Amino acid sequence: MPVGTRGSVKAVSPDDLESLGAEIILANTYHLYLRPGHELIERLGGLHRFMSWSKPILTDSGGFQVYSLSPLRKITPEGVTFRSHLDGSSHFIGPEEAMDIQKALGSDIVMAFDECVPYPSEYDYVQRSTELTTAWARRCREYFSSPGKALFGIVQGGVFPDLRERSAMEISEIGFDGYALGGLAVGEDAACRFRMIDMSVGLLPETRPVYLMGVGTPEDLVESVLRGVDMFDCVMPTRNARNGTLFTESGRISIKNARFAEDERPVDPACGCYTCRTFSRAYLRHLYMSGELLAYRLNTIHNLYYYTHLMGKLREAILEDRIAEFRRTFYERRRHKEGGGI
Amino acid sequence: MPVGTRGSVKAVSPDDLESLGAEIILANTYHLYLRPGHELIERLGGLHRFMSWSKPILTDSGGFQVYSLSPLRKITPEGVTFRSHLDGSSHFIGPEEAMDIQKALGSDIVMAFDECVPYPSEYDYVQRSTELTTAWARRCREYFSSPGKALFGIVQGGVFPDLRERSAMEISEIGFDGYALGGLAVGEDAACRFRMIDMSVGLLPETRPVYLMGVGTPEDLVESVLRGVDMFDCVMPTRNARNGTLFTESGRISIKNARFAEDERPVDPACGCYTCRTFSRAYLRHLYMSGELLAYRLNTIHNLYYYTHLMGKLREAILEDRIAEFRRTFYERRRHKEGGGI
Repeated sequence: MPVGTRGSVKAVSPDDLESLGAEIILANTYHLYLRPGHELIERLGGLHRFMSWSKPILTDSGGFQVYSLSPLRKITPEGVTFRSHLDGSSHFIGPEEAMDIQKALGSDIVMAFDECVPYPSEYDYVQRSTELTTAWARRCREYFSSPGKALFGIVQGGVFPDLRERSAMEISEIGFDGYALGGLAVGEDAACRFRMIDMSVGLLPETRPVYLMGVGTPEDLVESVLRGVDMFDCVMPTRNARNGTLFTESGRISIKNARFAEDERPVDPACGCYTCRTFSRAYLRHLYMSGELLAYRLNTIHNLYYYTHLMGKLREAILEDRIAEFRRTFYERRRHKEGGGI
Repeated sequence: MPVGTRGSVKAVSPDDLESLGAEIILANTYHLYLRPGHELIERLGGLHRFMSWSKPILTDSGGFQVYSLSPLRKITPEGVTFRSHLDGSSHFIGPEEAMDIQKALGSDIVMAFDECVPYPSEYDYVQRSTELTTAWARRCREYFSSPGKALFGIVQGGVFPDLRERSAMEISEIGFDGYALGGLAVGEDAACRFRMIDMSVGLLPETRPVYLMGVGTPEDLVESVLRGVDMFDCVMPTRNARNGTLFTESGRISIKNARFAEDERPVDPACGCYTCRTFSRAYLRHLYMSGELLAYRLNTIHNLYYYTHLMGKLREAILEDRIAEFRRTFYERRRHKEGGGI
């Protein structure tokens, strides 16, 4: 799903998102809590109205940004005390506060408050942290009261199979509307990540969606969907777009490359996005090299369309029971076209 | 008309421009000549195709940016030798080159090559410069060969009535499809500018459009249209948008202002643009304060809509012969609303 960190998915508007087929966005609780403040957003009718986005919104719990952005934070069984990265002011968020903030935002899919452990971490630390995440998940479940909204639990456990297993079982036992896999794609190798995914998915209720947080490349999506993952969030399509890296059926291209200077073809001839329907690689390269703001939007529209439609094609392949064939074609196109020089 | 300096009107796409009612854009010859190069654009089918803009394009002659951006330039009767502000490379543009470059771009309204004198300048300098502009205008007229395209001459003469008069008469005598007033809004006071406009317009053929270059505020537009001006170009709507200054029927507002933090109203309740139809002042303030790229686009859409529709309303008022009434209402709304606190 497209990631909207601070009140907009970077460089695009809600109608851009609708046009390219996005059905849900993620909003970052930490950013919105600090600025403009969840209470202000609540007074103005909630985040849907504030952003003018009528489809579902998933909010993260705020935890991940507290751990990654706050210059000073202290974790206790009650919750996390931290300083704002904006002005240094002191704040506290625990499981109950995380539920309150997400409720004020008007979130449709609320995430339980967890601790995301860094990689690598010692076994003892991950064990204590995973216990804390379970205790917090239980408090979120008890405190949560948003009729018609969904609450997702988060499985942690680092890269230790027994801790992952225990976390998956404990979080399932508490019972949530969906289950997220947290603490992955933080530096561990791909083989290890897929082992953790396989193991966790196998222990979660089959009838509930599984959400792999912070992942990933197109290849990661294909491989994870094959393993039973249903949802993802990642800065990859938007951040890459702003750096001039564009995704195509044949692999990535850097629009900065001089070989595109007179290339009249669209970024991806197989793509139906506004950018590909309207502009040439030559023009997109020119915009990027000239530092034009329009470059960010056009590149972002393309990459989000690519990701959204990749997920759509995966859904279709599952429904039509040809996911193995889809995977084969997916990799063949990349090998083939990369040899042929896109 | 919206100003597209380097291959895009800053922060908006061609479909944004169409949606808000723009009917013509200006492209800067100097920028496009240096990057990506007019010959590249010509090989790719011209600027309309390159930018995906099918309505008219006016190109400036390149002169103004040579004078204002080039770190080193030398003017001779042949033309101007200058260094690129991008890489220091040496270039020459004279009247014939300016025609060739604009032709390669596929311009619909081509501007004659002129010298725009700084303000203030000595009488002797302005006199020599105005003679040069006339000589160059004649060479442009003779060399110009783009069937179906228009060539506009430029009146110079600084703020010296006799030089303005002479320039207006000489340029009219050469005979162009339209006439521009150059070298104004460069630091002279408004009374002086309007004297120059009045004088020049009176000397130009009544049946040809008059284009006041580089102007201006909404008040400037109203006052100049009353004096017979038909066309304008200015960075004011787009640059102000990127600085958070928005135009409304009641005057300008700075969206950064804290009093808009919880203001649910659109920027201008009288405005029908996408931004005003979709977002509140509170949201636009939040986007701006958070440094979101979307802020630039939404603000630019609003300001361009405001300018485009102001010109549309002026056209209507002229056709319905109620321009004096329009002017009165225009100022009354500003006084009234500013007192009431927008």
